[in-house]
Amino acid sequence: MDLELALRVCEAALKQAAREGALISVAVVDAGGHLVTFQRMEGARLAGPVLAPGKAYTSVAHGRPTADLAELARPGGELYGLAGDRFVCFGGGVPLWADYGEGERVMGGVGVSGGTIAQDVACAEAAASVWHTR
Amino acid sequence: MDLELALRVCEAALKQAAREGALISVAVVDAGGHLVTFQRMEGARLAGPVLAPGKAYTSVAHGRPTADLAELARPGGELYGLAGDRFVCFGGGVPLWADYGEGERVMGGVGVSGGTIAQDVACAEAAASVWHTR
Amino acid sequence: MDLELALRVCEAALKQAAREGALISVAVVDAGGHLVTFQRMEGARLAGPVLAPGKAYTSVAHGRPTADLAELARPGGELYGLAGDRFVCFGGGVPLWADYGEGERVMGGVGVSGGTIAQDVACAEAAASVWHTR
Amino acid sequence: MDLELALRVCEAALKQAAREGALISVAVVDAGGHLVTFQRMEGARLAGPVLAPGKAYTSVAHGRPTADLAELARPGGELYGLAGDRFVCFGGGVPLWADYGEGERVMGGVGVSGGTIAQDVACAEAAASVWHTR
Repeated sequence: MDLELALRVCEAALKQAAREGALISVAVVDAGGHLVTFQRMEGARLAGPVLAPGKAYTSVAHGRPTADLAELARPGGELYGLAGDRFVCFGGGVPLWADYGEGERVMGGVGVSGGTIAQDVACAEAAASVWHTR
Repeated sequence: MDLELALRVCEAALKQAAREGALISVAVVDAGGHLVTFQRMEGARLAGPVLAPGKAYTSVAHGRPTADLAELARPGGELYGLAGDRFVCFGGGVPLWADYGEGERVMGGVGVSGGTIAQDVACAEAAASVWHTR
Repeated sequence: MDLELALRVCEAALKQAAREGALISVAVVDAGGHLVTFQRMEGARLAGPVLAPGKAYTSVAHGRPTADLAELARPGGELYGLAGDRFVCFGGGVPLWADYGEGERVMGGVGVSGGTIAQDVACAEAAASVWHTR
Repeated sequence: MDLELALRVCEAALKQAAREGALISVAVVDAGGHLVTFQRMEGARLAGPVLAPGKAYTSVAHGRPTADLAELARPGGELYGLAGDRFVCFGGGVPLWADYGEGERVMGGVGVSGGTIAQDVACAEAAASVWHTR
């Protein structure tokens, strides 16, 4: 995950946010869940610097979109108790995959926060599509 | 958010608490969520120094009253998992807005803890009304 | 440590700061080290909300001015390793004592941050003198 | 501190890093110390995502370059014990000032990590000069 590609991934999230009329923060992390780039739009909520990197990290750490964790983390769900300060278990985080012949591997993640969950997810998916068509 | 105004915001919360017969802590934070003033009434619970600033910060970070987050953060809600050490997701935190022509901007927040949730909300709203009529 | 007295203690620190030409934050804590009141002057540094309560707490927790801990906490000192995020070991925190016949007891503490260490100490001592002549 | 300006500030740090032959992370924070943008160069150390935002925040919280804190935070220095998880007390963080007539105010900060301290400082100062000539 080099910086140039991460910035393009980021840019796609911001463009989608403009289309959605949402003010967002977006974070891109590498295969270790560590921040590569982060951008917060003017006027976006201060929760963004906490939640966007959190969602990106969580999507890498669990190898799936954070939206999928939402149900699993609820009372009665398989991963009840997971949600907390470390793992952000609601939509807006999406892993970035690569095919390595023998199987897919998580190469990074993108996290978006600031809009509604539907908007955050749409922005994160727009960002991820840049990665997958790189 | 200067100190003098913050003290007046604080005082309004304490007056409302006296009317409610509640013993509260009240915190006022700036646009960055950082404490400007805090006051704890004699006999108010020790949770106040944790929760009042926490509610004030949370209302700034999310740009809405913490009471609104309560529903969203419940199991089945859109933001389940948000509630934790960082964000306090029950009533008593209210953002303080200013109109900047192009739109409203969060200029600070007030958080109240110590009474029932209804009392905390009433105190926080009384405090916020001092700000909005400043 | 009731709120009214704590506010007077606080006010004395702010008056001293005005004399010193310093922009400070001041915190007053009770015998448990928990915040009773906090005030940050317009333009005072953002480290204040962290350090002023930290100094007040530390002075209560160790039963002495934080300035006294500075030497003890240095390499070679008796309490080397004490300084860190929990205990603030430089000047500006002062315990508030009461005489209980059999001996003195710490009833609270005041912490000041924002000026030079000499200014912070002067403000904290001015504040403590209000307590001791209450 | 809008995103566009923050990105230009960031870019200046990266250009200076290229001149220095250093691999860095750079963070720009707003007046509340909250992240606006972050960029990590390919191959830069994993400490960057921790230290660059930490330096930027610290320079805002204390209203001075983190290099100035280095001396003060040493054993025997006035602020010994300040250095820790919260405040990063070595060079590479620089506050961004604005003149408000009555005095200067901290409007944000930039933090750089990854090179030698001298390189980090050079990159942060190059970045800050973009802000001050905006």
